Amino acid sequence: MQAEIISVGTELLLGQIVDTNAAYLSRVLSSLGIDLYHRTTVGDNETRIAEAVRVAFETSDIVITIGGLGPTQDDLTKETVAKTLDIELLFDAEAAERIRGFFESRKLPMAESNLKQAVRPAVGRTIPNPVGTAPGAIFEKDGKSVICLPGPPVELIPMVTETVSPYLRDKRGPTAEIIKSRVLRTAGIGESAMEQMVKDLLQSGNPTVAPLVGRGEAQLRITAKASSEEIADVMIAEVETKLKERLGSYIYGVDDETLEQVVVRALIERGLTIGLAESCTGGLIADRITNVPGSSAAFLAGVTSYSNKSKTELLGVSEDILKEYGAVSGPAAEAMAQGARRAAGADIGIGVTGVAGPGGGTPQKPIGLVYIALSRKEDAHPAAERTYSQEFKFSGDRRNIKQRASQAALIMLRNELL
Amino acid sequence: MQAEIISVGTELLLGQIVDTNAAYLSRVLSSLGIDLYHRTTVGDNETRIAEAVRVAFETSDIVITIGGLGPTQDDLTKETVAKTLDIELLFDAEAAERIRGFFESRKLPMAESNLKQAVRPAVGRTIPNPVGTAPGAIFEKDGKSVICLPGPPVELIPMVTETVSPYLRDKRGPTAEIIKSRVLRTAGIGESAMEQMVKDLLQSGNPTVAPLVGRGEAQLRITAKASSEEIADVMIAEVETKLKERLGSYIYGVDDETLEQVVVRALIERGLTIGLAESCTGGLIADRITNVPGSSAAFLAGVTSYSNKSKTELLGVSEDILKEYGAVSGPAAEAMAQGARRAAGADIGIGVTGVAGPGGGTPQKPIGLVYIALSRKEDAHPAAERTYSQEFKFSGDRRNIKQRASQAALIMLRNELL
Repeated sequence: MQAEIISVGTELLLGQIVDTNAAYLSRVLSSLGIDLYHRTTVGDNETRIAEAVRVAFETSDIVITIGGLGPTQDDLTKETVAKTLDIELLFDAEAAERIRGFFESRKLPMAESNLKQAVRPAVGRTIPNPVGTAPGAIFEKDGKSVICLPGPPVELIPMVTETVSPYLRDKRGPTAEIIKSRVLRTAGIGESAMEQMVKDLLQSGNPTVAPLVGRGEAQLRITAKASSEEIADVMIAEVETKLKERLGSYIYGVDDETLEQVVVRALIERGLTIGLAESCTGGLIADRITNVPGSSAAFLAGVTSYSNKSKTELLGVSEDILKEYGAVSGPAAEAMAQGARRAAGADIGIGVTGVAGPGGGTPQKPIGLVYIALSRKEDAHPAAERTYSQEFKFSGDRRNIKQRASQAALIMLRNELL
Repeated sequence: MQAEIISVGTELLLGQIVDTNAAYLSRVLSSLGIDLYHRTTVGDNETRIAEAVRVAFETSDIVITIGGLGPTQDDLTKETVAKTLDIELLFDAEAAERIRGFFESRKLPMAESNLKQAVRPAVGRTIPNPVGTAPGAIFEKDGKSVICLPGPPVELIPMVTETVSPYLRDKRGPTAEIIKSRVLRTAGIGESAMEQMVKDLLQSGNPTVAPLVGRGEAQLRITAKASSEEIADVMIAEVETKLKERLGSYIYGVDDETLEQVVVRALIERGLTIGLAESCTGGLIADRITNVPGSSAAFLAGVTSYSNKSKTELLGVSEDILKEYGAVSGPAAEAMAQGARRAAGADIGIGVTGVAGPGGGTPQKPIGLVYIALSRKEDAHPAAERTYSQEFKFSGDRRNIKQRASQAALIMLRNELL
C-alpha cells in the first residue's frame, strides 16, 4: 500500500511556516506500514493542486492533502479534489449545524462564508473536526482514497488520531507490512568514527542500518519491515545487540531519550546529587537538566557566574587563580566545580568556563576554547574529594558552542557515573 | 524566474526530522523574487531522486536539492544529478585538502570515504562549506542550474548566505519583482485580542497584513510585492506605522529579533545590570539572555535554586518566608529577586518560582502556578529599593510552562525598562 502527501499553502512556499504536519503524517504512515515515496508542496492555486492530486492519485492508493479547507477564497482543496476525481460535493446540514454552534458557543459573529466548509463528498465520508470549524473529507474512487485534512496541527492531529488512523488501519488490513524504527544515540564519539566501528553492520536490506548525520551527535537508525510489530521488534533487537557490542558505552540511549534524561536517571539511581557552575554555557546545562521531570531529586542548585565577582563570591574561586590562569582555564573550571559542589551541598559539582564568542577571543584563548571540570566527594573518604578537568575546542557560533559545551559536560558526568 | 526545491532523505519520509531547510530556502527564494510553485521530498533512492530532478529541471530554471551529500553509501545526490544532467564529476583536490584539514584540526581520524565528497561538476562550480566536510555544487546546463546543498542546517545556512544567494541574485538580474515580508512581534497580548485591535487593517491585497498563529506569541506579517526592495520597504513602512499606532508598546521587535535581544539591548543602553534567581525556569532565562552576544555587559550572575537550602544560603531568602508562605509564593519570589540582585551585585534582580510539573502540584498550588518578582535599586535613593511580584497561571507541559514563565519574566523586565 502506497501513499503520497500533498501539502497545500502559499505560506509554505513562501517559507512563512515550517511543515510539521507532513512530518507527523509521515510518522503515522510509517507506523502503519504504508509506504511513502513522495511528498509534494503546492500553493493555493487550483491548477497546481489539481495536477498534484491527479499525478498522486495515479501512482498511490492513498493521497493525503493538508491545508486549504478554511472559509476564505484561497481555500480550494476540497473543491479541487472533487472536480479532479469527478465526485460531487453535497451540502452537509449536520456540519453546518456544528459550524453555527462553534461560533455561538464562542459568542462570535459567523460570516456566511464559513458555511462553504459544510460539504461532504457524494462518495466517501466526512472527517469530524473536534477542535475547529473545517471538517475533513475522504473521497473514495476505484478502491483508492483522497483524504483532505486542515492545516492547523491542533485540528489535524486529533482528526488523524480519531478518524484517519483507524480508517487507514482498516483499509490496510491485518496482514500488511509495518515499518518500525529505532534510533541508537551515542555520546563521546564522532560520526565518522562511529561509522568506521560499525561499517560492516550498515546495511540497506531489511532491517536497514544507517547513520543519521547532522543532529549534533552520532546516531544510527535501524528500520525493519515486518508483518507485525512483534516480528519487527525481534529483527531490530538482533541488529541492536550486535551494534551495542561494537559501540559499547558510546550508546547512551534510544529514540527520543535525551542525554539529560539518562544522566538524571543515573544520578537518582545512585542516590547522588549535583550542583552546577556555568560560565560560557550560561544556564543551558541547568535548563537541560531541569527539563527532565523529577530532576529536583538530583539537581540542587546552579550558579551562572558571568562576572568574576560572582565566581569568587558565590563559588569561592580564589582571586589568585583568576589572576594567574585567567577565568577561562582548567584551574578556574576545577575551582568552579568545587565551588558548585560546596555551594549546592551536593555530591558532584560541574564547572564550565570558556569563550562562547563572537567577542572575547584572543590568540591564547580563542573562541570555542572551553574547560569543563568535575568534582566529586570520595565515597571511601567523605572528607576527601577528586577533581579533574578537560580542555575542549568547539566550533560554530555562540549557540553552537554553548550547546556543544553543555553536551560535553553531560557526557563527562555520564562517564563519571558509569 | 522559477525554482523548485527537492528535499532528499528517507528520514524525512519516515517523519524523523522536520524539514526546516525547505522553509528557509523558500524564504530566501521569495526574498529574491524567484517564484517557487512546487517542493518535492524523495527518499535516498537513486531512481526517485533522478526522476524528481528530471521533472524539476524540465519546468524550472533553478532546481535546489537538499541532503544526500555526506560520505555514506546513502548519499547519492551529487552523483545522481551528474548522471541525470550528463555532466561529469571531477575530483577536487582543493576540497580534498579542506576535508583532510577539517579532520586534522579536530585531531580525528579520517575515513577514506570522506574523500568521496571531494568532487565538483565539470560544468558549474563548488559551493564551499565553511562548517562541515561536504562541499555543495552548482551544475549548469542550458542556462539552468541545479544547486546541491547538504542537509544539516548549520552547514546549509552559511552556504546559502555566502554563495547561493549572491549566485541567484546575479542570475536573476536587477529587474524582477520581489516579495518582501516583515513580521511584527508582540509581547503581553493574546492572539485574539491583537486581532481585534487591528481587524480593519488586516488585508489580503498588496501589501497583505495577516496574523500568524501558533507561534507562542501574537505576530503580524506584512508582505509586499514590488519591483524593488526600496519600493517594498516603503509599502511595508506605511502599514507598519498604522499597526504600531494601534498596538503601541505591545510590539517589541520585528522579524527574527527575540525578546531577550531587545531586553539585553535596553539594559546596556541604560547602563543597568541584572542578576537572576530561577527556580521553576531552571536556568532557562539565564540561557536565553546569554544567547545574546554581548550580554555579559548587562548579565552578571544567576542562581538556579532548586533546593530550599540554596534559596536560603545563596540568595538569603529567610526560612520564615519559606515556612509561612512556601517556596512557591509571591513573598518567596520577591525575596529571591532581592537576593539575586544582591548576590550578583546588580541593579535589577528577577526571581521566579513555581510548579512546572508533572509532579508537585497541589489543589492550593497547582501545576502552572508561577510567581515572578522584580527588585530594583531606586535611582533617586541608591540605598532604597523597589520590589514587586505578579502571579501567573500557565498551561501546558513542563517545558511549555518553563518557556512561558521565562517569557513572562522577560516581558516584566522589558516593561520595567520602557
